[in-house]
Amino acid sequence: MYLEKINAPEDVKKLNIDEMHALAAEMRKALLFRLSKHGGHFGPNFGMVEATIAMHYVFDSPKDQIVYDVSHQSYPHKMLTGRKDAYLYEEHFDDVSGYTNPEESEHDFFNVGHTSTSISLASGLAKARDLNGETGNVIAVIGDGSLSGGEALEGLDFAGEMDTNFIIVVNDNDMSIAENHGGLYRNLKLLRDTDGKAECNLFRAMGLDYVFVKDGNDISSLIAAFRQVKDSTKPVAVHIVTQKGKGYELAEQHKEQWHWCMPFDPATGKPAGSFDGDGDYGTFTANYLQEKMAADPSVCAITSATPAVFGFTPEIRKKAGKQFVDVGIAEEQAAAMASGIAKNGGKPFWGVYSSFLQRTYDQLSQDICINKNAVTIAVFAASVFGMNDVTHLGIYDIPMISNIPNLVYLAPVTVEEYRAMLDWALDQTEHPVAIRVPVQYVSDGKAVTKDFSQLNRYEVTQQGSDVAILALGSFYSLGVAAAEKIQEKTGITPTVINPYFITGQDTELLEQLKSSHKAVITLEDGVLDGGFGEKIARFYGDSAVKTRCYGLKKEFLDRYDAQEVLRENRLTVEQIAEDVAKML
Amino acid sequence: MYLEKINAPEDVKKLNIDEMHALAAEMRKALLFRLSKHGGHFGPNFGMVEATIAMHYVFDSPKDQIVYDVSHQSYPHKMLTGRKDAYLYEEHFDDVSGYTNPEESEHDFFNVGHTSTSISLASGLAKARDLNGETGNVIAVIGDGSLSGGEALEGLDFAGEMDTNFIIVVNDNDMSIAENHGGLYRNLKLLRDTDGKAECNLFRAMGLDYVFVKDGNDISSLIAAFRQVKDSTKPVAVHIVTQKGKGYELAEQHKEQWHWCMPFDPATGKPAGSFDGDGDYGTFTANYLQEKMAADPSVCAITSATPAVFGFTPEIRKKAGKQFVDVGIAEEQAAAMASGIAKNGGKPFWGVYSSFLQRTYDQLSQDICINKNAVTIAVFAASVFGMNDVTHLGIYDIPMISNIPNLVYLAPVTVEEYRAMLDWALDQTEHPVAIRVPVQYVSDGKAVTKDFSQLNRYEVTQQGSDVAILALGSFYSLGVAAAEKIQEKTGITPTVINPYFITGQDTELLEQLKSSHKAVITLEDGVLDGGFGEKIARFYGDSAVKTRCYGLKKEFLDRYDAQEVLRENRLTVEQIAEDVAKML
Repeated sequence: MYLEKINAPEDVKKLNIDEMHALAAEMRKALLFRLSKHGGHFGPNFGMVEATIAMHYVFDSPKDQIVYDVSHQSYPHKMLTGRKDAYLYEEHFDDVSGYTNPEESEHDFFNVGHTSTSISLASGLAKARDLNGETGNVIAVIGDGSLSGGEALEGLDFAGEMDTNFIIVVNDNDMSIAENHGGLYRNLKLLRDTDGKAECNLFRAMGLDYVFVKDGNDISSLIAAFRQVKDSTKPVAVHIVTQKGKGYELAEQHKEQWHWCMPFDPATGKPAGSFDGDGDYGTFTANYLQEKMAADPSVCAITSATPAVFGFTPEIRKKAGKQFVDVGIAEEQAAAMASGIAKNGGKPFWGVYSSFLQRTYDQLSQDICINKNAVTIAVFAASVFGMNDVTHLGIYDIPMISNIPNLVYLAPVTVEEYRAMLDWALDQTEHPVAIRVPVQYVSDGKAVTKDFSQLNRYEVTQQGSDVAILALGSFYSLGVAAAEKIQEKTGITPTVINPYFITGQDTELLEQLKSSHKAVITLEDGVLDGGFGEKIARFYGDSAVKTRCYGLKKEFLDRYDAQEVLRENRLTVEQIAEDVAKML
Repeated sequence: MYLEKINAPEDVKKLNIDEMHALAAEMRKALLFRLSKHGGHFGPNFGMVEATIAMHYVFDSPKDQIVYDVSHQSYPHKMLTGRKDAYLYEEHFDDVSGYTNPEESEHDFFNVGHTSTSISLASGLAKARDLNGETGNVIAVIGDGSLSGGEALEGLDFAGEMDTNFIIVVNDNDMSIAENHGGLYRNLKLLRDTDGKAECNLFRAMGLDYVFVKDGNDISSLIAAFRQVKDSTKPVAVHIVTQKGKGYELAEQHKEQWHWCMPFDPATGKPAGSFDGDGDYGTFTANYLQEKMAADPSVCAITSATPAVFGFTPEIRKKAGKQFVDVGIAEEQAAAMASGIAKNGGKPFWGVYSSFLQRTYDQLSQDICINKNAVTIAVFAASVFGMNDVTHLGIYDIPMISNIPNLVYLAPVTVEEYRAMLDWALDQTEHPVAIRVPVQYVSDGKAVTKDFSQLNRYEVTQQGSDVAILALGSFYSLGVAAAEKIQEKTGITPTVINPYFITGQDTELLEQLKSSHKAVITLEDGVLDGGFGEKIARFYGDSAVKTRCYGLKKEFLDRYDAQEVLRENRLTVEQIAEDVAKML
């Protein structure tokens, strides 16, 4: 076995071509072993095995610096840079994260999990190298899917003017997570169809030299191409055509499904665990939108390359026709286009992960909110119970977006509330509306009659005294449980409030509370800094009412246990009741 | 005179070509009249006179919808769409803003002031038109300088796949605010040099059809080109070559200087007012950086197309050589590249307007802060005293960036503190640091000995009792004046504190204050929601200390009077003293 003997890239350089082929097969086996038991990004890694071997054969990492975009194709790199055990042995699975990580290895330069950043980040490495009079190659590896992102395109344009060594390896597997969208993909196709010879060439138009590798899973061709560009004194794009999922038949055939996987049975491809929830917000949203679309041709569902987040399977996308738009990985385009659709009387719905919404602060503020266009944004995985990798946290969206004027940011507790909010948001034309979709599916069957057009009206769900609990969205049930525990402990019945509105205050209700409440506590499922609770603390700052805000500390968490994080932030029912008892 | 008779685009359609030439001359005269007395964007408007006439001659606004990028070239459009008086008569100057504005006219579709948004916004107009089964042309007008922005490039890529009428007019005057930077500008040059015939063509590579107009100041050629694309059923780029500043010799010769102007004498081009401050932070920063660069070749000054904001004139840029990088209008690239430079041991300094920093939330969070790379960011015009157009406000950066973990955001009061913060930020390697540069220049000559590496240590500058005033950055002097007034009114000497750190709390000091202070007030030069003061209110929420936060209400202000806004937010010395007297 070769892989077991690879402790560093030097060990790759000792192999001959046949041995490298054998190594590639072993690496795929190790990938399959880990991914079938642990889950992770599948297709992109299977496609990049040969290219990674060839890069480490030709270049001298870490003096030559390789930056992987989004890290979805970095597992083979990890295997060849001293971390093979994490793919060979189950007990070492947790030695590595799913992303490049400088804390793991000197061969990794950035902790990366968002797309479209590699060229820009690597351009900085090259710039510092030159300023310091150092040498070495800087290589950015980027997938075709990531090319549509604004940061990648800015980086490509910038790179075209660099007068120095800078290599961009474009891993073209003709797929994003789902299929690619955007005009540039026709150019990539033209280049593939002409063996890179077409005169009209995006990379050359951006000012780069260009090398084409027809079979990006052929180690010899790759070695030749990388040797050709090594030590280049000009920026150059190496366009390699790879097969996503190569070596695992199901993944070769079903590319979208196998972009990423949960643990599965390698023989059948069937997921190991079964999903047994009562429902999920993605499926609910897809069903809801299909109803709406059928009734109103101006309803338009928008995704920025992650249609599955709101349940839009390939079949539903097809059925939706022109009422569905995938802009590709291009969140800025999604936000601004949604604003334009609303301006011209359409009803845009954009479903997006909390973490990726981060790419659009300016578009939310300038393109949407200054213009007060009635865009509806559903924010998914915005919770401590969302993804738990440091690059994909959903705990910052409240501070990021709720302080933008004109935006109405709503926090539903149940699927019934979510539905009512969607109804209101899509039918009104006055406000940009974002809805913070909970992660945990809750249905209480109650009809929602609330009129959301009366902005910033909270709802008292339990009238009590002495202490009021403002429990926002997905932390509402925590608030209810805490109220029970407080009653048990102190005999006092707390007032419980569902605020619904993250972006504004029910000042009338808050004023009223002053007469019969000594304390108001707030609960929110995100970081406290800049969030919901602090505004309540400000409101009561010069009054006799005491406040305490519950939520998460401002920090970057990584691969955390949610229950542990809640405990550390005094977010258990017992802890809250204990604190409140002391306050009263 | 023709212009006086133009009340709507229909009136343009009645003119023959000679009359249109005469109209163009009158429009330039009107532009010169207004701009010399009022200031505004100069060069881009002078270059777009003919194209605007031709568009309104060929297309039928507002049924055909024209969206202007950044609005710097929209004055001729305003003149031809019922707003000529604002250019002809001084008493009507204030009838219009400097930007397209739907509240002014049905011919304007968005309030736009940031660059690179027109294609994305317009693509939404086209999408809604199609969903609603309507007809009409949608036209996005974008300058070459704006093309380098991520949102524009995402839009261009998206547009290339639109299977419908969509026209992008690329106004290529071969300039951004300063000179263009990026590889794509070599392609624009190639296209200009080959009369649009080069096979390698960025627009075609993005999937668009392409039409070239060699002389974009020739009305006849423009009319012919626009007629050719009118009612196109495919997306098409019309690349027109215009002369920035055309018709005013000084502006033709000094394009960067005449991108934008203050009031000036039309005969000489000399500014009407004189600048008589003691100094300014731009010049200071340029001098400081030049010193640093001379001493350390790894110091790198970065701008995203606005080098003047930190005093980098063309001469200084030239002198700085490789230690200066203009990434073009590409803030995402600037942020991520800075992270890469820091990672490889360089010392990146990025100077950027508060309003444009908004384009980089995700890059600040993911590319810089998760990776803890020691980037130094100087944030300019971040104040109620900054720009006062709704699209350029500098009052949101505290909520936007200060809630991102790992970032150290500092607020200097004086130029001496600014210098000390720059020294620390550039020399340390532990933290990403942003510095909120005041707008009003204050120098007190005092040496700063503070050690900023001891994070989150506030400084008591006046020890008093009963009430403590935490006065942040540019509002420090307001805090000092309020303290004097409070003393005068109540006899109590307030404690005055310079917090320095926006992003963290001196909890030890805040705890100490509890023993001898009944109230703590905070002052910050920005919106309160999500800001500095609310965190103080949270800190004291469950204690006996009362708090009151001073700052601005969360809203979009437009063309405001700063003193009036301060009064409305109870931010005068008298109002603060009055409130505090009541609290005590």
